[in-house]
Amino acid sequence: MRTLIRGGTVVTATETSKADVVIQDERVAAIGVDMSVEADRVIDASDRYVMPGGVDVHTHMELPFGGSFCSDDFETGTRAAAFGGTTTIVDFAVQDYGEGLRQGLDRWFEKAQNACTDYGFHVIVREVNDQVLKEMDELVGEGVTSFKLFMAYPGVFMLDDASIFRAMRQAGGSGALIMMHAENGGPIDVLVRQFLEEGKTEPVNHGLTRPSVMEGEAVHRVFKLAELADTPAYIVHLSSRDALNALREARDRGMPAFAETCPQYLYLSQDDMARPGFEGAKFVCSPPLRTPDHQEELWSGLRGGDLQVVSTDHAPFNYEGQKDLGRGDFSKIPNGLPSVEDRFTLLYGGVEKGQIGLNRFVELVATAPAKMFGLYPRKGTIAPGSDADVVVFDPKKERVLSAATHHMRVDYSCYEGRTVRGLPELVMQRGRVLVENGEFHGKPGQGRFLPRSRIPA
Amino acid sequence: MRTLIRGGTVVTATETSKADVVIQDERVAAIGVDMSVEADRVIDASDRYVMPGGVDVHTHMELPFGGSFCSDDFETGTRAAAFGGTTTIVDFAVQDYGEGLRQGLDRWFEKAQNACTDYGFHVIVREVNDQVLKEMDELVGEGVTSFKLFMAYPGVFMLDDASIFRAMRQAGGSGALIMMHAENGGPIDVLVRQFLEEGKTEPVNHGLTRPSVMEGEAVHRVFKLAELADTPAYIVHLSSRDALNALREARDRGMPAFAETCPQYLYLSQDDMARPGFEGAKFVCSPPLRTPDHQEELWSGLRGGDLQVVSTDHAPFNYEGQKDLGRGDFSKIPNGLPSVEDRFTLLYGGVEKGQIGLNRFVELVATAPAKMFGLYPRKGTIAPGSDADVVVFDPKKERVLSAATHHMRVDYSCYEGRTVRGLPELVMQRGRVLVENGEFHGKPGQGRFLPRSRIPA
Amino acid sequence: MRTLIRGGTVVTATETSKADVVIQDERVAAIGVDMSVEADRVIDASDRYVMPGGVDVHTHMELPFGGSFCSDDFETGTRAAAFGGTTTIVDFAVQDYGEGLRQGLDRWFEKAQNACTDYGFHVIVREVNDQVLKEMDELVGEGVTSFKLFMAYPGVFMLDDASIFRAMRQAGGSGALIMMHAENGGPIDVLVRQFLEEGKTEPVNHGLTRPSVMEGEAVHRVFKLAELADTPAYIVHLSSRDALNALREARDRGMPAFAETCPQYLYLSQDDMARPGFEGAKFVCSPPLRTPDHQEELWSGLRGGDLQVVSTDHAPFNYEGQKDLGRGDFSKIPNGLPSVEDRFTLLYGGVEKGQIGLNRFVELVATAPAKMFGLYPRKGTIAPGSDADVVVFDPKKERVLSAATHHMRVDYSCYEGRTVRGLPELVMQRGRVLVENGEFHGKPGQGRFLPRSRIPA
Amino acid sequence: MRTLIRGGTVVTATETSKADVVIQDERVAAIGVDMSVEADRVIDASDRYVMPGGVDVHTHMELPFGGSFCSDDFETGTRAAAFGGTTTIVDFAVQDYGEGLRQGLDRWFEKAQNACTDYGFHVIVREVNDQVLKEMDELVGEGVTSFKLFMAYPGVFMLDDASIFRAMRQAGGSGALIMMHAENGGPIDVLVRQFLEEGKTEPVNHGLTRPSVMEGEAVHRVFKLAELADTPAYIVHLSSRDALNALREARDRGMPAFAETCPQYLYLSQDDMARPGFEGAKFVCSPPLRTPDHQEELWSGLRGGDLQVVSTDHAPFNYEGQKDLGRGDFSKIPNGLPSVEDRFTLLYGGVEKGQIGLNRFVELVATAPAKMFGLYPRKGTIAPGSDADVVVFDPKKERVLSAATHHMRVDYSCYEGRTVRGLPELVMQRGRVLVENGEFHGKPGQGRFLPRSRIPA
Repeated sequence: MRTLIRGGTVVTATETSKADVVIQDERVAAIGVDMSVEADRVIDASDRYVMPGGVDVHTHMELPFGGSFCSDDFETGTRAAAFGGTTTIVDFAVQDYGEGLRQGLDRWFEKAQNACTDYGFHVIVREVNDQVLKEMDELVGEGVTSFKLFMAYPGVFMLDDASIFRAMRQAGGSGALIMMHAENGGPIDVLVRQFLEEGKTEPVNHGLTRPSVMEGEAVHRVFKLAELADTPAYIVHLSSRDALNALREARDRGMPAFAETCPQYLYLSQDDMARPGFEGAKFVCSPPLRTPDHQEELWSGLRGGDLQVVSTDHAPFNYEGQKDLGRGDFSKIPNGLPSVEDRFTLLYGGVEKGQIGLNRFVELVATAPAKMFGLYPRKGTIAPGSDADVVVFDPKKERVLSAATHHMRVDYSCYEGRTVRGLPELVMQRGRVLVENGEFHGKPGQGRFLPRSRIPA
Repeated sequence: MRTLIRGGTVVTATETSKADVVIQDERVAAIGVDMSVEADRVIDASDRYVMPGGVDVHTHMELPFGGSFCSDDFETGTRAAAFGGTTTIVDFAVQDYGEGLRQGLDRWFEKAQNACTDYGFHVIVREVNDQVLKEMDELVGEGVTSFKLFMAYPGVFMLDDASIFRAMRQAGGSGALIMMHAENGGPIDVLVRQFLEEGKTEPVNHGLTRPSVMEGEAVHRVFKLAELADTPAYIVHLSSRDALNALREARDRGMPAFAETCPQYLYLSQDDMARPGFEGAKFVCSPPLRTPDHQEELWSGLRGGDLQVVSTDHAPFNYEGQKDLGRGDFSKIPNGLPSVEDRFTLLYGGVEKGQIGLNRFVELVATAPAKMFGLYPRKGTIAPGSDADVVVFDPKKERVLSAATHHMRVDYSCYEGRTVRGLPELVMQRGRVLVENGEFHGKPGQGRFLPRSRIPA
Repeated sequence: MRTLIRGGTVVTATETSKADVVIQDERVAAIGVDMSVEADRVIDASDRYVMPGGVDVHTHMELPFGGSFCSDDFETGTRAAAFGGTTTIVDFAVQDYGEGLRQGLDRWFEKAQNACTDYGFHVIVREVNDQVLKEMDELVGEGVTSFKLFMAYPGVFMLDDASIFRAMRQAGGSGALIMMHAENGGPIDVLVRQFLEEGKTEPVNHGLTRPSVMEGEAVHRVFKLAELADTPAYIVHLSSRDALNALREARDRGMPAFAETCPQYLYLSQDDMARPGFEGAKFVCSPPLRTPDHQEELWSGLRGGDLQVVSTDHAPFNYEGQKDLGRGDFSKIPNGLPSVEDRFTLLYGGVEKGQIGLNRFVELVATAPAKMFGLYPRKGTIAPGSDADVVVFDPKKERVLSAATHHMRVDYSCYEGRTVRGLPELVMQRGRVLVENGEFHGKPGQGRFLPRSRIPA
Repeated sequence: MRTLIRGGTVVTATETSKADVVIQDERVAAIGVDMSVEADRVIDASDRYVMPGGVDVHTHMELPFGGSFCSDDFETGTRAAAFGGTTTIVDFAVQDYGEGLRQGLDRWFEKAQNACTDYGFHVIVREVNDQVLKEMDELVGEGVTSFKLFMAYPGVFMLDDASIFRAMRQAGGSGALIMMHAENGGPIDVLVRQFLEEGKTEPVNHGLTRPSVMEGEAVHRVFKLAELADTPAYIVHLSSRDALNALREARDRGMPAFAETCPQYLYLSQDDMARPGFEGAKFVCSPPLRTPDHQEELWSGLRGGDLQVVSTDHAPFNYEGQKDLGRGDFSKIPNGLPSVEDRFTLLYGGVEKGQIGLNRFVELVATAPAKMFGLYPRKGTIAPGSDADVVVFDPKKERVLSAATHHMRVDYSCYEGRTVRGLPELVMQRGRVLVENGEFHGKPGQGRFLPRSRIPA
């Protein structure tokens, strides 16, 4: 089976070339000027960008939460991802207390049976002990090469610094990457209790009790621990100027210090959490949305290279039936936003506004996450031999984001009514069309597990 | 005319792919897996890297110096560059006092008639006045889109801050890039006079009178002036930790702040300037070689992204007859080192030692300078439609650097006797072989002038 | 002649003690609890602070300006100072172009003949050459131990970095202190010309053309030059956050880096320069008044120790007849504010508001300037053997600042109508009453020249 | 009872005056030139400094340690302090697990019955709960106005960040000061276990397992927590450049951030811990002695004002019978050094070497700790009304430090054989001679408890 994508502008993290792309079976065979090859199918990409499929390294499909689950499972979530131009996700398997990492991972393999796109796994480590450290090495050997730790949520996910340090050294030894939720959870919980006692129960207090200074502190601590452990570290969902400055300080002293931010921190703010009534609950996630002045700083970090990745932290909960568990007590609002479908186009908005360049867009949305997490060269680019995960993107198409039209299984959109430019018109995975003209052509279960390589030194 | 480069590993700033490259006339036509096309010539690149030709944005061919000239002219210099894997240079035309920029530029067009590789020009501005500012805009329109200013060499090149600020604002308005020699020349000259009065005349005193703190100061000042002028700036030949830290501080506050370093600052040190007798004169350049502890810091800057480019500042003077003008008075030693032939392989040494990755090597040696200076997409990459400037690089080949074997017209090598790995085995420009098996196949005058685009915002 | 000040609270930079002060002739003889000594005069200081007379190390009496002069001469200026609680000033003698330092100094000795308070001199160096450097050492031997240099006012006062560096090294060798007007004058003048060409002629443009980033740059440069010269340096009239941060950075790396700020930067702002009509001219000084957000930062610097001194830069020009030279061209407005009478009480306002402590107030207003400039232990404190320069201060007295009641010879007050707390009720110099109950008891010419010691290492 | 100290040079934090001091009963009555008063005793202080008695705010008399105790109790420890010129100590009462603060404090009141000098108490908080927070406020009302928390020693003293934050806010509310042992104990314990498993058991490994980066991290965290709690904080025994830089960063952003260092960090180093055999155990304390390059940095911090206090952390353990509990396992070596007797003279060494000035010496050794901890104006200075705690100091006297001659009850000296200049020749508390001519004239139990004021805002 051969496909020819003709007449488009091929965009990678480095190149912007008028060129045709030849796809042979599952892989990119060639990129060239006016390729005259026979093909089973010819796709006209005139006036379109031909880009690698997006790689979203931070999703939470079907994550359990207090008896309930994130509203997207792997089937609905990856389908929505595909509509949005993302063809690879890396989801988080969760160790339960008292069990090993493998048991948690096994549950997630089970959940992912119906995935429509390719996927990999990180593992969230809730307990560190000798057995867990040994398992970390084993899993790395099987292609699960990154582990997420928490400095927040005492009693639920939070690890102490000794455990974090032990895990870091283990990861350093095996070439795994430590990912960190960097908020200092202890003082935050003190503030939460105080606010509730004072009757401050509305959603915006979620943000007011998680001040950015505690994110900055945590990021600083991560890189001091990593310095001592002599290992890289990666901050997930970096949300604030304080955190970015701590990251920069580490990078300036030569540390292999990395971080992602998410579209919500680039476009939404604490003002959204303060919307009247309970609507702010739709915007409750952790770290919380910050005041609007943090946004330009994050764009600056993306532009200058201090932030390497944009992912989503996709963790959807329905407004009706889930978010409303927190009416009268903001601390009971499920933390998380739906975003997996919107990332590609929202980030492209930065190109439209001149905040980032076109190649940098591709790097952030696909190439860098693929390289950072051991998926390259299979994923994250359009190059001979790479998986033919391709987005034909119409940069001029205007549309309005809305829960009425999105494909995520959640009853609201954080971007309801926002007009965006750019549409992933045709989305292909390993040479097969997943989405075309707004129709889904994929099948549940066709997504493959992606064993990932060790982190490059 | 069609050429097929078969079986190699194509390396760009992003990709590392086993792929064939098809060249049609002067341009890259396609890159693909097992390309079965007819070709006039097939080059076997098995076990070789196929890389874009190097882009060296800092050379001084036939630069006048005190009645004499840099020992390489455009013919010999670009020939040597080609042997070293570099297929594009950007040289500096010099305005003389009392004349306009165009007159200086015209002289350089004349000098470059015999160039063997493609070339562009920056212009060195020695006087800023209304006429010169107007000319800057005109030259930008003709593809000369960068201007170099000096904070050093009072009475010869140095501009005061008012002039620098005026030039920066003019450049900002037209999309030109200001390049800065950042050393505070005033105090340096005070020290030089003092050292000479004290009888300290040996070459090493060149370094001792140009302390790195005065480079750091100057870099800091550049970016404060640029901040006020609201324009990007680019530091040439950044040599020290002090300067790098000043650069980082500017980048951390979101400035479009850029810099190059040179191989001599990565591999040589003040110890070389202190070699016995007058031999240290071979290593006299400005900024001077620093103490060895600065080197790892510069590699860290290249790895982390704070330094964007590696160029040479190629300015060769013969040891006999030129450098020896400074016997008994270090301040009379012509400033400059031969390096245009060695850059590509020396920088590749960083890949060998794990200091930078392979894609980052290509980015530093070719892609980033091409993009920074408006040569992309013609130069700096291997992509459909780009000029077929290609290096077939044998990464395993060991050889010894020496004046006896190099092709630069200068009677010594800074790296005499150093064993390096990696050889640009075959070098091609616009589809024609320039160098193959140690033979030169090019002709003087075949190099073309490259008008350059404005700097991207 | 013996005086007993009884029943007050003696406040020094360290102490706050209920104690009596015994003055024998010109000096403090003893401080003690319930001193029962016979005295020629007994002063009741109940409910009063007994503090050292203020030391103002930055005044410009009778400074020539464009054919005119600052409106206060030494007689009127020191009289006003005394009313305000200041008993020692250090004024700036100015070298003219083409002459030696001594000639300038001699002119100032002449001007100071009628001083009512004690005084010393700094010398402003406008030209640096071998002769001037030699004179610097001579003057230090005669008690003129500090020299002021300018980085602003090209063509009038500005020195290049080579000259500054030479003067710094000379000062370092003789134990003199370099004082620096730190604004980068070159770009500022470019902006001034541009604004005038654009028809922006109102007073506020004085501020807009002297942005704080150019003060921060200059302060940074001072301490890099001083680091290379291995000598301390002192910034005069530091006005902005940018400058304070540059100072802090120098101090953090262990430099002997010092600075003063002035009351106008603590209480007034760019908003005053933007008052309607031409009234803003009353507030034109250099560096200019900044936006109000800088003020708290400066208080923080005073509190934390990074700023050591508060002086006035007293340089009064009448609104009618002098300031109005700049109607229609802000660059012609004489630069300077009247302030010598108000400093003591205005700074005490910081104690009232909790911005600084009471001992810190005395340190800033008297002790630290005396120590910094070699006047201690004669001046700056109340201690056995010190000159009996004493202020009996009523901290509760409220009054309104106004040109109608102040004693400076200038037709406006920057603080017109402002209510302040605290009055220097009785002011004494060397045991003789200068001011009491609002009456002046001193005589022109009774002030003495103060030779000053070298700066302590 | 009246005493006249005649002919000396009275030195305070601000003054250096040739003056006599009159003492009436327990207090300083007057300071003056040639005081002619009748006195019961006249002390000739010619060629001597007359200084305030030292205030050591960090001692551990009779601290329990694993079934044993610090070898000095309040009697022997304060006697030794007096010999060394220190007349006030503030010791740490320790809360035991499961009890309230008051019970711990009561034990220490009991221990202190035999004190020879005046004393106050801080309380070490090992558990934070509602009851403890309430007790904090009560104790502040009774003159115990500072509380020490630990970030090190997991399972023994360490508190988590939530507890620290709660205690900080409570202290902020009542005007108490939080003192922090700032080392991140978790990773340190991981390293300790690892080193022991690897058979690295010698004393020097105590230092190698407590790297300075973990002190820097902890100091940074302290001031982020304090920023959020809006309260001052004070770091005890700051030992390293890393920690000092974190402190400076907090102070630069305007925080009320304070710290002490100790003589051992100024004079001793990791090299001492690495002395042959088990001798290094004599130098085991926490934070550990650092490499020698940290010393000059700490002196710079004392000179520039970023470090406010020098105290001892006096915690003596005999080499025989106590330190040797750690033979074969460095983690079992009791942590602590004897130092209370040597602080005054060792710090005076900084005056001798020009590292600090004479007034700064007095400030660091007496005035600043008294002010910081609410003992001023009773303690810390020589001023009318202050307690007559006076040291007559012979700055020329040379002597050799040795366990053979010191008065601390411990069998070794960290400074054995070191020649120092300066001797507290006569030491007086509240007007009574404690030490004179090497004889002790005080009595156990004559020391008084000092209730302390709240921390000034």
